[in-house]
Amino acid sequence: MKLATSLLTCMRCGDSKPLYGAVEFKCHCGGLYDVTHTWDHLQEYSPLQLRQIFDARARPLAHNGPMTRSGVWRFQELVMPSLLPENIVSLGENATILPAGDRLREWVGGDLDLWVIFEGLTMTGSFKDFGGTAHVSVSKQSGVKALICASTGDTSAMAAAYAAPAGISCVVVLPRDDVSPVQLMQPLMHGAKVILVPGSFDECMRIVRELVEQKRAFPINSLHPARIEGHQATVFLAAQFFGWELPDLFVVPVGNGSNTSSIGKGSRLLKNLGFVPRDERGRIISVQSTAADPLSSAWEKVQENGVADPSKWAAAYRPRQHLGKTTATAALIGNPVSCEKVMREINHSRGAVLTAREEDLNHAVMVAGSDGFCVCPQTGTALAGLRQAVSRGFVKKGSRVAVVSTATGLKFPEVVRKQSEGLGLTQEAKTCSTEEVANLIGV
Amino acid sequence: MKLATSLLTCMRCGDSKPLYGAVEFKCHCGGLYDVTHTWDHLQEYSPLQLRQIFDARARPLAHNGPMTRSGVWRFQELVMPSLLPENIVSLGENATILPAGDRLREWVGGDLDLWVIFEGLTMTGSFKDFGGTAHVSVSKQSGVKALICASTGDTSAMAAAYAAPAGISCVVVLPRDDVSPVQLMQPLMHGAKVILVPGSFDECMRIVRELVEQKRAFPINSLHPARIEGHQATVFLAAQFFGWELPDLFVVPVGNGSNTSSIGKGSRLLKNLGFVPRDERGRIISVQSTAADPLSSAWEKVQENGVADPSKWAAAYRPRQHLGKTTATAALIGNPVSCEKVMREINHSRGAVLTAREEDLNHAVMVAGSDGFCVCPQTGTALAGLRQAVSRGFVKKGSRVAVVSTATGLKFPEVVRKQSEGLGLTQEAKTCSTEEVANLIGV
Repeated sequence: MKLATSLLTCMRCGDSKPLYGAVEFKCHCGGLYDVTHTWDHLQEYSPLQLRQIFDARARPLAHNGPMTRSGVWRFQELVMPSLLPENIVSLGENATILPAGDRLREWVGGDLDLWVIFEGLTMTGSFKDFGGTAHVSVSKQSGVKALICASTGDTSAMAAAYAAPAGISCVVVLPRDDVSPVQLMQPLMHGAKVILVPGSFDECMRIVRELVEQKRAFPINSLHPARIEGHQATVFLAAQFFGWELPDLFVVPVGNGSNTSSIGKGSRLLKNLGFVPRDERGRIISVQSTAADPLSSAWEKVQENGVADPSKWAAAYRPRQHLGKTTATAALIGNPVSCEKVMREINHSRGAVLTAREEDLNHAVMVAGSDGFCVCPQTGTALAGLRQAVSRGFVKKGSRVAVVSTATGLKFPEVVRKQSEGLGLTQEAKTCSTEEVANLIGV
Repeated sequence: MKLATSLLTCMRCGDSKPLYGAVEFKCHCGGLYDVTHTWDHLQEYSPLQLRQIFDARARPLAHNGPMTRSGVWRFQELVMPSLLPENIVSLGENATILPAGDRLREWVGGDLDLWVIFEGLTMTGSFKDFGGTAHVSVSKQSGVKALICASTGDTSAMAAAYAAPAGISCVVVLPRDDVSPVQLMQPLMHGAKVILVPGSFDECMRIVRELVEQKRAFPINSLHPARIEGHQATVFLAAQFFGWELPDLFVVPVGNGSNTSSIGKGSRLLKNLGFVPRDERGRIISVQSTAADPLSSAWEKVQENGVADPSKWAAAYRPRQHLGKTTATAALIGNPVSCEKVMREINHSRGAVLTAREEDLNHAVMVAGSDGFCVCPQTGTALAGLRQAVSRGFVKKGSRVAVVSTATGLKFPEVVRKQSEGLGLTQEAKTCSTEEVANLIGV
């Protein structure tokens, strides 16, 4: 298949410039960029033929390249059709899609056909790998020598892990007090330089933004929209898994907004290209915690019966200055970079943005655990938001719903420690005697 | 396909009894049991037809059951052909197989065709899920109400995660001082009861063994050989990935010995059934740390030019009473349950058991990290052992080698913290000023 041309196109004024080699990531009008591609490369194939090509690659038995090994590059013609294959930097990114177990289905309610898309069973343990492989591959093709990001922990892990094999150096700027110990270790494992800042993620993001604007540092935050392109694989994988149909509803947590942005963009692309039916499926409900709710609190202010007028919502939106406390630290962001894109996709899909209470999102982690699932508190946020959506009548009974689990719970042990306190699950034996253990467990 | 019959068969005296419902897991002669199956169910198919069936299932696009979703149940006819499909308890277990990057290939040496089989990108973060899905499914079919295990951390996580959706209660017995905080959290997340014992894993294992023998507790340690059956998927997945050929060499760490046992057993099975060529490929090199080296130290005592006489090796073997300190805590076992099976498979495959030095196994984790890989110190043990094997001339130049990465590094952050100390990778900014951060990173 021939290569496409890729551009950065402003989502406000429509101005565009070449993707590769770009060093400014905000349009002169102030708008965010989308990556756009020419689609001529697909013209010689029908959607059916392309689906067959993608299906044929979806086989873990071939060892001859990232297209068969990666759940992102399987869809290269959709994800980044202008990339030369030799520039692909992949760590085998993939999603594991499982039906929810009985306990989770019952807790959520609504008699749903409920699925969880696990994106944390990846090399760095979070969904960021999907975007990272696209971004670092573009960076390699652009000849970038150094990458920088602000992070609540997952982006920095991804940036370091993908920069390393690409031979690109990496600096990560982290909020000193809001990153879990495991997440602090990850960039070091991959040889990145770690700068700890005595402030919030939003302050780290401001610093990185200024370094990008003033010092021409190259960002791997979703400030650079190549990330979003790779994240779209969530939709492509889910559509393929369900036999080239979208689920009725995606449910995702919102931090910086890249999940919502990419799921919306990917769903529109599949519909436009004729890969999936052009119907109402692919609605998005996004969820924030009470600690960082700028999008959801504005949405709630203006919504009526679950529908928010786009211009009223935009007018009601305020970045949140003072953040609360939450175990969902990866989404502790008061001024999401992709805010405008989140609004676009929620509006387009007739979705909603809800707020999950702290106690509910933490409880959701344990309910998922009782089905054998190991999820992060951000996934808990999405699950608690879905439960609320069901109880408020925002989800039709029997709908097929796919909740994105954005990271493995292994990165967030504190949630479980707190939730299991007082349950009496742990007991210490004083000796190594079998009788003592037998007594403790009651056999 | 019709169901097979599965038995527990003693590897010493050959006596057997039904698998389902068994409550004793040591033969009257003292030997360990293997699970054996009747193979009549395969008779109506040629190996080629069966490979095509397995290949057709190896597609993540079908959402209709564990056979298409799980890398273990894809091979149900080989893994556990007597299991009723409704008893399968699966969490979507799969392996990610990637080529080693340049840094790791160079460090290992020998100009190898080097691959890493990542088995830690699974729900509980380790290879144990492969065995767990087989074991808990057999437990469900047997009507078991409660499971117990001793663990260095990975088995307990798996036991709890798989017991939960099966509706089986679970008790895990852990060495209080040798389990990482993340691993301590995992069983709690899935509602298991945790007993902390002030001793080593070997003492936990003794307690569990006595509870099994005296109180009829049902073990989910590899004491119960159903675990090994699921672990064989490592071989089946690798063979399928490489186009139904085995790599020349598998390299694995040894703790309790279930990796070596299952890879050897699975390789013999594929050869016997005609799925892969009956040649010398599928050799196994297993590696222990200096802290827990009962198998490797005995092997070194008797080996000549890389070959150990089986009876001399068995005669030289002594369980190790006093263990050393290692970051590879998951393999800190002085008296491996599957010791006899490890010897059988190493002897059969003309392999070796080597000892990796602590500094080398820790360094290996960082070398893998510089290729973007996030691996545990046990994987480091295997990598360091492979490097040693190459330098000692035990591995032919250009061989295709598959190293099993048994767990994600996310469970073992301490290794990285220690290894990166003094490298100056972390810097604290005193303020949130962009200029200060620019100075720290030198832009």
